Amino acid sequence: MLTQAAQTWHVHTSIMDPDPNAPARALCNEFTQGSLQDPDAVVAFGTGKDLLSIEIENVSVEGLTTLQERGVQIHPSPDALQTIQDKGKQKEFYASHNLPSAPFHLYEDKASVLAAIDHATLTVPFVQKARRDGYDGRGVVVVRTRQDLDGLLDQPCLVENLVEIRSELSVIAARNPSGQISVFPPVEMVFNPEANLVEMLVSPASITPSLQVKARQLATATIEAFGLCGLLAVEMFLDPSENLWINEVAPRPHNSGHHTLASTFTSQYEQHLRAIFDLPLGSTDSKVCAAMVNILGAKGYEGTPVYEGVEECLKIDGCSIHIYGKQQTRPFRKMGHATLIDQDQVRVLEKAHRVQEKLKVTS
Amino acid sequence: MLTQAAQTWHVHTSIMDPDPNAPARALCNEFTQGSLQDPDAVVAFGTGKDLLSIEIENVSVEGLTTLQERGVQIHPSPDALQTIQDKGKQKEFYASHNLPSAPFHLYEDKASVLAAIDHATLTVPFVQKARRDGYDGRGVVVVRTRQDLDGLLDQPCLVENLVEIRSELSVIAARNPSGQISVFPPVEMVFNPEANLVEMLVSPASITPSLQVKARQLATATIEAFGLCGLLAVEMFLDPSENLWINEVAPRPHNSGHHTLASTFTSQYEQHLRAIFDLPLGSTDSKVCAAMVNILGAKGYEGTPVYEGVEECLKIDGCSIHIYGKQQTRPFRKMGHATLIDQDQVRVLEKAHRVQEKLKVTS
Repeated sequence: MLTQAAQTWHVHTSIMDPDPNAPARALCNEFTQGSLQDPDAVVAFGTGKDLLSIEIENVSVEGLTTLQERGVQIHPSPDALQTIQDKGKQKEFYASHNLPSAPFHLYEDKASVLAAIDHATLTVPFVQKARRDGYDGRGVVVVRTRQDLDGLLDQPCLVENLVEIRSELSVIAARNPSGQISVFPPVEMVFNPEANLVEMLVSPASITPSLQVKARQLATATIEAFGLCGLLAVEMFLDPSENLWINEVAPRPHNSGHHTLASTFTSQYEQHLRAIFDLPLGSTDSKVCAAMVNILGAKGYEGTPVYEGVEECLKIDGCSIHIYGKQQTRPFRKMGHATLIDQDQVRVLEKAHRVQEKLKVTS
Repeated sequence: MLTQAAQTWHVHTSIMDPDPNAPARALCNEFTQGSLQDPDAVVAFGTGKDLLSIEIENVSVEGLTTLQERGVQIHPSPDALQTIQDKGKQKEFYASHNLPSAPFHLYEDKASVLAAIDHATLTVPFVQKARRDGYDGRGVVVVRTRQDLDGLLDQPCLVENLVEIRSELSVIAARNPSGQISVFPPVEMVFNPEANLVEMLVSPASITPSLQVKARQLATATIEAFGLCGLLAVEMFLDPSENLWINEVAPRPHNSGHHTLASTFTSQYEQHLRAIFDLPLGSTDSKVCAAMVNILGAKGYEGTPVYEGVEECLKIDGCSIHIYGKQQTRPFRKMGHATLIDQDQVRVLEKAHRVQEKLKVTS
């Protein structure tokens, strides 16, 4: 979707992706297959380019830093990316910048977490998060009772207090090298409790205007603290006392901004380009209310995907469907998403629920 | 923009274009360079495809008919395309289907037009249109006085009465093989008098609700008469007595629908795909008011284009800019377009005028 936005300005785009069948392959001028974690591959790809950006955090910082030293513009900066890639460093960053995030401790492995419990320096309940490579529900363990301790991850991790969550919000901010900042309306995310990934998202979030302002201010403070250029999706918890806590951030176009293609004056993709090209940022006003439903692989099905109920969904006014073209489905795999729009927030939710009922990815 | 919509559904797309540097090349799965007027090239390209559509009228009907006979789905149908390609046949079609269009006569060449004037069977003023290959102001001669007769085209043509024009409208209709029809809000086109091409477009048109209905009904009747599947842009004249006259039609995504990407629930591109795939048509409701400004090459400049004023324009809330990436500019050449959106119709016009002032393509 980012390359589509780039095409609108006739920008020459080159993509590097480990998957030779990456969907973006058909949408760019030049495609390179390669490992994003391999510094040499990243340097080889980036050499001679004017500007590099990312759509996934897990890219070799070493490679990007080398390119930056050689004069290639990199947004977001390798420095910020390094902090964000390591959730432990991310938490330390929030603490040192007075950005609210749940109290935490770092541990080396499962044994040191268990030892802390034995020494009563750590008490159940808590959340364990792998410091690296967590994604879409992987790398997070919620320990509610001592029975859950068996499932602890055995790797460098952080453990944080369970925040009592009234809702989970995401606020996407953009910043350009001139320092201009612009923030999209806060959205509310509804998680699938079983898979721990976003099942549905509603924009704007149904929170009070003063909380909307507070959430936007927190996103602004966060992108300013990182000093990065491009987009920063700031995921937050709202607790019952109406405090906001940063959960984590993503320095790129984000799942919680897909709906902006249909519902805001400027899409997150165009905004990312405006930001990294140091162009004036676009308006983030809403045209309509929106909901986004992730199309997840149904439980009990694996193999070549079959999309059931698509025609029924397309009969819903304001329903657009995005199919990612993944060749295999499996339970809870993200296979696409549907965007619903309406002038009315209640109706948009009704539409989203209808899509959830009708659309099913089997095999 | 059509292939971008197709990509959203992960549809495998193949493009044929005479220009090896066609912008769509980077946006499709497979690209073939070839002449769209060469029947053999069209047949070679279409063989083995599931479904073919067009984005320009001037495609070999002979080639498409051969493919259709061999079982390839073609939308719009070669039959309808044949009628539309020839403006003489188009006019005869309207007459025989009781669709309102200005009275006309067909002539073989310049001499026969002049002879008709000598014999007083034709009187100045009138409009002469080439039967074939007119596009973007080419192939149309407005004869207001006898001095204009020197400029007559010397080719098979039609001559029609000058309709007194209060405004020019375009209404895009869509129809799928199941017979469902859906119509976008009528838009008003403002022409550059010098170049005879659309300079600005406003959606919705500032006409009374009853005229909106009448214009939609005429578009519906027209696409039904052609029986074609896909989009049909119906360009109409509104005269001072509030009569509507069909000027001409285009059976494809149309310049007068660019703004739908930003302003309607479903874009014309997605609607075209829904129509040719026989899927339920999407809502054509407006999210916001829109204007589209064609970015034309400035007078007095030819060569590698330089786009002046882009940053100023991007500061306007709701301004998105599309650059087509053409390698050469020349006076009045369409180099891109800007879309402006706003909740308010007066403000959207103000924004459009600001873009017209600021944006200039020089060399």
